[in-house]
Amino acid sequence: MTDLHPFDDAIALTRLDHGTLRGTTSTAYANIAGPFGGTTAATMLRAVLDDDGRSGDPVALTVNFCGAMREGEFDISARMQRTGKYTQHWSVELTQEGTVLTTASVVCGQRSGGFSHQSAAMPEAPAPECCARLATAGRMNWLERYDFRFVEGAPVYAAVPFAEPAGSRSLMWVSDLPERPLDYLSLAALSDTFFLRLVHVRGTLAPMGTVSLTTYFHATPGELVAQSSAPLLGVAEGSRFHANFHDQQMELWGENGRLLATGAQVVWFKE
Amino acid sequence: MTDLHPFDDAIALTRLDHGTLRGTTSTAYANIAGPFGGTTAATMLRAVLDDDGRSGDPVALTVNFCGAMREGEFDISARMQRTGKYTQHWSVELTQEGTVLTTASVVCGQRSGGFSHQSAAMPEAPAPECCARLATAGRMNWLERYDFRFVEGAPVYAAVPFAEPAGSRSLMWVSDLPERPLDYLSLAALSDTFFLRLVHVRGTLAPMGTVSLTTYFHATPGELVAQSSAPLLGVAEGSRFHANFHDQQMELWGENGRLLATGAQVVWFKE
Repeated sequence: MTDLHPFDDAIALTRLDHGTLRGTTSTAYANIAGPFGGTTAATMLRAVLDDDGRSGDPVALTVNFCGAMREGEFDISARMQRTGKYTQHWSVELTQEGTVLTTASVVCGQRSGGFSHQSAAMPEAPAPECCARLATAGRMNWLERYDFRFVEGAPVYAAVPFAEPAGSRSLMWVSDLPERPLDYLSLAALSDTFFLRLVHVRGTLAPMGTVSLTTYFHATPGELVAQSSAPLLGVAEGSRFHANFHDQQMELWGENGRLLATGAQVVWFKE
Repeated sequence: MTDLHPFDDAIALTRLDHGTLRGTTSTAYANIAGPFGGTTAATMLRAVLDDDGRSGDPVALTVNFCGAMREGEFDISARMQRTGKYTQHWSVELTQEGTVLTTASVVCGQRSGGFSHQSAAMPEAPAPECCARLATAGRMNWLERYDFRFVEGAPVYAAVPFAEPAGSRSLMWVSDLPERPLDYLSLAALSDTFFLRLVHVRGTLAPMGTVSLTTYFHATPGELVAQSSAPLLGVAEGSRFHANFHDQQMELWGENGRLLATGAQVVWFKE
């Protein structure tokens, strides 16, 4: 028996008789309350990727965090909404004790090639080995499942909020800990490893949480294999923090300056 | 009887006995085949906003275009998934003759105030009256329902694709035609008025279409009233065009440099 990587353990699903998938939250990826949203996102995606009816590679994933998950078992049902010649659409729901706590939509696509052009440029950054690893011990468990090396915009936890808002942009190297070859599932989770921009802007950990997360997968299967377990360069930035919600955008860059994923999320904050 | 604005006519819904909502596509907003996606997005949002159970203002809207709508009647069902203290989550489905053609998720939120900060800066642009209106006659009808005034990156329809990819960024003033005071519904539609970036990059209208569209609403109700029917400044940019799909991001700016909405979409293209 081979030991599972903690990520694969966290997103493991068992198919029940009536087709529902059952999983269990992993304490290795525990957040302040309940599991890290990135593992939840990856588990929602997995429910589709593991389905016999699935056709094509993941192109888009939107995850809506409807209510707080508790640690323990959860059930996922994935429903194929439509299969066309080029795309396939799925709706996914996660419940605990019958209550819907997360919903998701997944779009898969047939990626056969053709025109290719990258208009965005990879941000400049020193090599990951030249950047210090963020100290994560003693905080939420999920932080210890990633190697964060900030180039710019490392989080600062202040005793009181900053007098003036700080910049919202971060640039960081990020990879699974322990190392794990990249796939669509880990890329989905990595897309949620960017700290909430309010932490960077205000310097405090007021009550806040992601309410909706969208990730677009640009990486083809061959590019994931080529990336393997090398660190990704991630950049994130927010644009407006107002009336209890803020947005943030992200890019995840891989080897040879390839843009592997882009995405956005909207975050609730208390005051 | 007051004449309805063509947008309000296009997104009108009637509640059927069993709670389903029925609409009819509007030729005034016809696209190459079927209706403009922006009106479909707005109609999905309307199904939630018109529901007696709805609580809070729209915060996030994701619309998945699963299959081509034809002109004619369509049915929408909106299901409230969860209502929390701060957010409410909805799943919405649009069918024609029983076939699911569009799905959507809507997040509404209680917006009571608190911390406010805009980290993004409005792009500089000459006043709308100093910019020429894009000629839209003789093309898809929906283009004539908007006043487009490009500052940068106007679309060029070339007979053959450009030899080298052009820039993906556009900056434009955009407003409803005829004028209509801004609300969340028109803002949802305006978020889909950015031409597909592939047109800008390649110069051709190859087969292509949006597969998933996400919009975050930053504007509060008071800001929508303040904006009224003044033009919005919109900026859009793509980052990677590869293996039949590309992304694009957008921002919509209003009076006094307020960021009213941000969003992203992923687009399929044939080759």
